[in-house]
Amino acid sequence: MRITKFAIPEIIFGNGSLNHLAPCARRLGAARVLLVSDKGLEASGWVERVVDILEADGLEWVYFNDCNSNPRDHQVHHGARVYQEERADVVIALGGGSPMDTAKGIGTIVGNGGRINDYEGANRIMRPLPPMIFLPTTAGSGSDISQFCIITDVERRLKMSIISRSLVPNVSIIDPQVLMTMSEELVIASAIDAFAHAVESYLSRLASPFTDHQALRAMELIMDNLMPAVERRDPAALERLSIASTEAGMSFSNAGLGIGHSLAHSLGGMFDVMHGLVHPVLLPHVMRFNLPVSVEKLAAIGRIVVGPRVASAECIARAGIERLHEFFSALGVPVRLGQLLPDRGVLETIARTALNDACTVTNPREATCENLLALCEEAW
Amino acid sequence: MRITKFAIPEIIFGNGSLNHLAPCARRLGAARVLLVSDKGLEASGWVERVVDILEADGLEWVYFNDCNSNPRDHQVHHGARVYQEERADVVIALGGGSPMDTAKGIGTIVGNGGRINDYEGANRIMRPLPPMIFLPTTAGSGSDISQFCIITDVERRLKMSIISRSLVPNVSIIDPQVLMTMSEELVIASAIDAFAHAVESYLSRLASPFTDHQALRAMELIMDNLMPAVERRDPAALERLSIASTEAGMSFSNAGLGIGHSLAHSLGGMFDVMHGLVHPVLLPHVMRFNLPVSVEKLAAIGRIVVGPRVASAECIARAGIERLHEFFSALGVPVRLGQLLPDRGVLETIARTALNDACTVTNPREATCENLLALCEEAW
Repeated sequence: MRITKFAIPEIIFGNGSLNHLAPCARRLGAARVLLVSDKGLEASGWVERVVDILEADGLEWVYFNDCNSNPRDHQVHHGARVYQEERADVVIALGGGSPMDTAKGIGTIVGNGGRINDYEGANRIMRPLPPMIFLPTTAGSGSDISQFCIITDVERRLKMSIISRSLVPNVSIIDPQVLMTMSEELVIASAIDAFAHAVESYLSRLASPFTDHQALRAMELIMDNLMPAVERRDPAALERLSIASTEAGMSFSNAGLGIGHSLAHSLGGMFDVMHGLVHPVLLPHVMRFNLPVSVEKLAAIGRIVVGPRVASAECIARAGIERLHEFFSALGVPVRLGQLLPDRGVLETIARTALNDACTVTNPREATCENLLALCEEAW
Repeated sequence: MRITKFAIPEIIFGNGSLNHLAPCARRLGAARVLLVSDKGLEASGWVERVVDILEADGLEWVYFNDCNSNPRDHQVHHGARVYQEERADVVIALGGGSPMDTAKGIGTIVGNGGRINDYEGANRIMRPLPPMIFLPTTAGSGSDISQFCIITDVERRLKMSIISRSLVPNVSIIDPQVLMTMSEELVIASAIDAFAHAVESYLSRLASPFTDHQALRAMELIMDNLMPAVERRDPAALERLSIASTEAGMSFSNAGLGIGHSLAHSLGGMFDVMHGLVHPVLLPHVMRFNLPVSVEKLAAIGRIVVGPRVASAECIARAGIERLHEFFSALGVPVRLGQLLPDRGVLETIARTALNDACTVTNPREATCENLLALCEEAW
């Protein structure tokens, strides 16, 4: 085994864990925090709840909500200005991947100066970020666990992958009660994002014994709990999806991802597609592309998806991929790329941009621009 | 599920990972490090190897080796004086549990003042410790991962459990190549210590979904790899024992332990018995004591130890306990308490001390002083 690195934030998990926020912030030196969230969380009442918790402890706060799905570079720069002008000392993010990635971008600029696209790629952040506490409100992005930050470069129309150990927040407070107010679409899109994290990190060139079983367990929990979570908002099922998302986050943060995410970033940058809705379309094709070099691992995934079978590894792997395609179809989400994009003419640009994404490097099978284009055509 | 906390150090794992030491130390601000190790590591050449790595990078170092099995309070105070007089800035520990726990004690005094027994129990350390990098040389103690530090109070003749999140080192660099020079006795004692960590944390009142599967995986890896590691020093088997110890460390650090460790601490404090040699004697009895409240979990352990069986949970649990007793016997280590202690007269004192150990609180079944005494008599 080659050398592997494994780093995660301190995690506080469980119903009611949100109440640990104020002492955590104090411990990190907070007197005046920047709270990053979005309009959806305002509407569902969670922003007010967090503000109440901060005020009850006498903590000052500044609110920042200039962020949306696929957060933009100028929003990050705006947030960094607010942090500095308001003399905040700790960043708290409440939300899904978008507010959390916005917060990471803000922290990067506050700690390192410059523009956010200075840090595109792996290991470009040299100075520490301000203390960060993340309160994830979806069970999927894994941004509260991970070394990844994905920000859209508006001018270039692409989502930049910024990867650095410095982007792991100090504390992640994961309270599954917060998931109760999620829409059905958000529950599904988040869980499939987490599932894609688990699959791609399990197949990644940097997968290790420390990440492998977390990835497999995440897949198992999502297969078993997504339906009851969607159909009845079953609190136990939502809690397990939250555990799955956390484990998938630990896995992909340390093992990296693959071309499914490269393409998802490329698509999201050009067309502002909701990230979690891209994976049902791409993942089965990505798995099929990787089959020649990852038969055993894809068979292990197959056994989770279809159950144990008396058959060759390749048979089980293929059965798993087919079943997954059916599973996504049954959820009522788009499963063809043509349902998400205006016309096939853009596919070449999408493939070209994806080729340069940081996630392409860790894909188990080397992919050329032609391979990526063919994969998109197949998924059309 | 109640609220659970999960914290681990940054981990760098793999053959050759020792070479990452100097940049890690630099990143933590090192200019002059305190290197804590012991005579065994000097003899095997690893101390010199580490010194070479530090010097090649121009780092100054001060060496401290006043520590032995079951490290003493006065050794910790001695080390803290050396750290301060020599104006060191980072603590590096190279060794098994003893040098690592000594280093944690030194860091505690340097950062917080006072005497080490001021911090006995859980969450008594209020100020941060200096940066710490640990290089474990046995696959067992888990001290490089954990929130635990066990120091002998010489006057009271007891091993104090000091538990605090501040005791998690910043970085743990785990290089399985270092294990090649371990004696057979040390391989066995370390692996059984790791196995006991896995079992006790899996049964603990604070066990969570994040720790459960790490504990189970550690048990599986130890059962499969201990024999080849002992018989042939098989490098792949040693590497897997190292993964097991790391996973067991993540589990017990966050879930806590039980009365097996309370009794082991009590015994080690009075008679300076090697910690890893106490568990083969006590663990089967501890598991039997916990059976009434942990049937399902003990059955899951049984399935790892004896393989799947068509039988009731209690049957499988009991079969696992019996098989474990045979497994320990086959390793040629003592399996009766009478082989370790001078006479039965001390058992009452041992039970009384164990009752107050911090590990007793997380044992799944409540234990009285009489229960602990009866368990010792049974193991005699």
